[in-house]
Amino acid sequence: MKLALQMAAGALGQTGINPVVGCVLVKDGRIVGMGAHLKRGHGHAEVLALQMAGEEARGSTAYVTLEPCSHFGKTPPCSDRLIEAGVTRVVVAATDPNPLVAGTGIAKLQAQGIEVSAGLLADESSAMNEAFNKYIVTRMPFVTMKTASTLDGRIASKTGDSKWITSPASRAYVHTLRHRHQGIMVGVDTVIADDPMLSARGDVPAVQPVRIIADSQLRVPLGARVLTEQDRQPTILLASAQAPAERRAALEARGITILTCGDGPQVDLTLAMRQLGEREIGSILLEGGGKLNGAMLEQCLLDKLVLMFAPKLIGGGHAAPVNINFEGFAKMDEAITLDRVKVEQLGPDICLTGYPIYPN
Amino acid sequence: MKLALQMAAGALGQTGINPVVGCVLVKDGRIVGMGAHLKRGHGHAEVLALQMAGEEARGSTAYVTLEPCSHFGKTPPCSDRLIEAGVTRVVVAATDPNPLVAGTGIAKLQAQGIEVSAGLLADESSAMNEAFNKYIVTRMPFVTMKTASTLDGRIASKTGDSKWITSPASRAYVHTLRHRHQGIMVGVDTVIADDPMLSARGDVPAVQPVRIIADSQLRVPLGARVLTEQDRQPTILLASAQAPAERRAALEARGITILTCGDGPQVDLTLAMRQLGEREIGSILLEGGGKLNGAMLEQCLLDKLVLMFAPKLIGGGHAAPVNINFEGFAKMDEAITLDRVKVEQLGPDICLTGYPIYPN
Repeated sequence: MKLALQMAAGALGQTGINPVVGCVLVKDGRIVGMGAHLKRGHGHAEVLALQMAGEEARGSTAYVTLEPCSHFGKTPPCSDRLIEAGVTRVVVAATDPNPLVAGTGIAKLQAQGIEVSAGLLADESSAMNEAFNKYIVTRMPFVTMKTASTLDGRIASKTGDSKWITSPASRAYVHTLRHRHQGIMVGVDTVIADDPMLSARGDVPAVQPVRIIADSQLRVPLGARVLTEQDRQPTILLASAQAPAERRAALEARGITILTCGDGPQVDLTLAMRQLGEREIGSILLEGGGKLNGAMLEQCLLDKLVLMFAPKLIGGGHAAPVNINFEGFAKMDEAITLDRVKVEQLGPDICLTGYPIYPN
Repeated sequence: MKLALQMAAGALGQTGINPVVGCVLVKDGRIVGMGAHLKRGHGHAEVLALQMAGEEARGSTAYVTLEPCSHFGKTPPCSDRLIEAGVTRVVVAATDPNPLVAGTGIAKLQAQGIEVSAGLLADESSAMNEAFNKYIVTRMPFVTMKTASTLDGRIASKTGDSKWITSPASRAYVHTLRHRHQGIMVGVDTVIADDPMLSARGDVPAVQPVRIIADSQLRVPLGARVLTEQDRQPTILLASAQAPAERRAALEARGITILTCGDGPQVDLTLAMRQLGEREIGSILLEGGGKLNGAMLEQCLLDKLVLMFAPKLIGGGHAAPVNINFEGFAKMDEAITLDRVKVEQLGPDICLTGYPIYPN
């Protein structure tokens, strides 16, 4: 099962809204087949492992990181394939939260006399598929907020200088995070200030996330790189119905997708997430600035926080922008707390990961 | 030597401006004596170990965490005592930075034919005596700044609510830190807002630090607990020459010590530290608020930072006070960086320790 999980982990970021799944077939103490789901619409892990095993699949045990599917999606159900191939025992890590599967895959196998056990390393499997687990149930994207700040929470000095705050090790990790999310989201002020590419640039080629810009009044400069360099990564603008019609027309004439998210002065972020979910964007990496981060947090739209801190203090009072800027709560016991906090060192930097628990 | 270090560590906080030192005497594979310096003016580690060993000290090896002294201070020199007792070998961890010792203790032993080696676990010993190592050379106190904030750096909500931010485990650690410093320092606004006791209240009785209040205009309320409850802990006020004379007279009539630190609108913090050093306060725990923390940092008066973060986000924009508030730097590469960063988890909280490196 550990090997199956490692194979699944290797595919993180390349399966779109699909989960990552690994499968290992074992017979008489030998591995006879391995597979992993690598891309949406392509073969499922079990099917690829069965292909590798061929006739040796008969009488084997399948170790699979997620409950085999029982429904026709883009491919036929895997539980049927395991039955046909003569697999006699199936060990499952996590059950499938997909309401179309949810235990029915296991039931189908058991009905055919196959011995099934579930739960082995289930937490590891579920953690890998945290985005899938949310999206498949809610159709809302799983949003990870990543910030990179000084220890005093600044994302730039009082004069706006921000290069560089964190170390090369941290910046490399950000590119891995980008690869692992379907969308990357920033506010228009970040585009105006930094003209970023918002691409995944690691040591090896990566899957490029869709770029999402929260831009209620469509202030994005027409020359911004997120608009002019669209060959590999489409850009989606989130705007208000209040945005000037001529700006909208100019942008649409260039083939830019604009989602209208409410008619208030700001983008209705909940509506925006729902619309992005409808477009099959199941995971988003939110990279600020502080006001957008704060607004997403206040509206309970963040699922995971990755806070990177460089071991530096830059100061700057009200003039230096902070990583998360929001109106906040009156009482300390109303604060948003983080669950399952993990702290790692990334080169000289500290990387804290946690899952927000919203009051009520 | 490990045992000698553990004994020394046990005395942390109770030796005043003196270092902590442990000594273990070994003869024929058996420990024949142990000692630790427990209180200023009381016996040194070596002397106590020799007393325990009696005649068995002759021909033994002394493991001592700090170079034996060679001068007459409050007690006679330890190097002489080791020679007299017939110790034949001395293993030293750290050499003594005290300009009155600095290698002369070792030289004196060697001159008498005693075999001396130095450097075993020297870093551990030096770390324990980091306050002593600064004070003995500069006569300025070693200042540790401790903050307890949310992950967004807030020490209270926008309405001023601050109970509680960190966990019981973190608060217990603060009391250990207080025990280990000779002075505890806050700004007068903290006294006005919270009326704190500023005492070390751990599970076991502790050494109580002197309370130091930065209060340029002597605004401290006469009924504040730091003034009315002075039986165990004296309080020192740091004021400007500008402070109203009648306030000064009223406070002095109650026996409060007031140090005049410059004649500006704010306390001259460098001068304040020098005056506290002259009063043999060799270590101070600075506990804010944010402006005092920031001012001490900007004036390069902090030697060590202990930043505790509760896994919470409270927000509050400009209304919620931050842990370190200072004017700051224009460029990111001018930031104050932290060296030797250590991260620990204290219950649910994150405790980051580091040593600031000031530009130039």
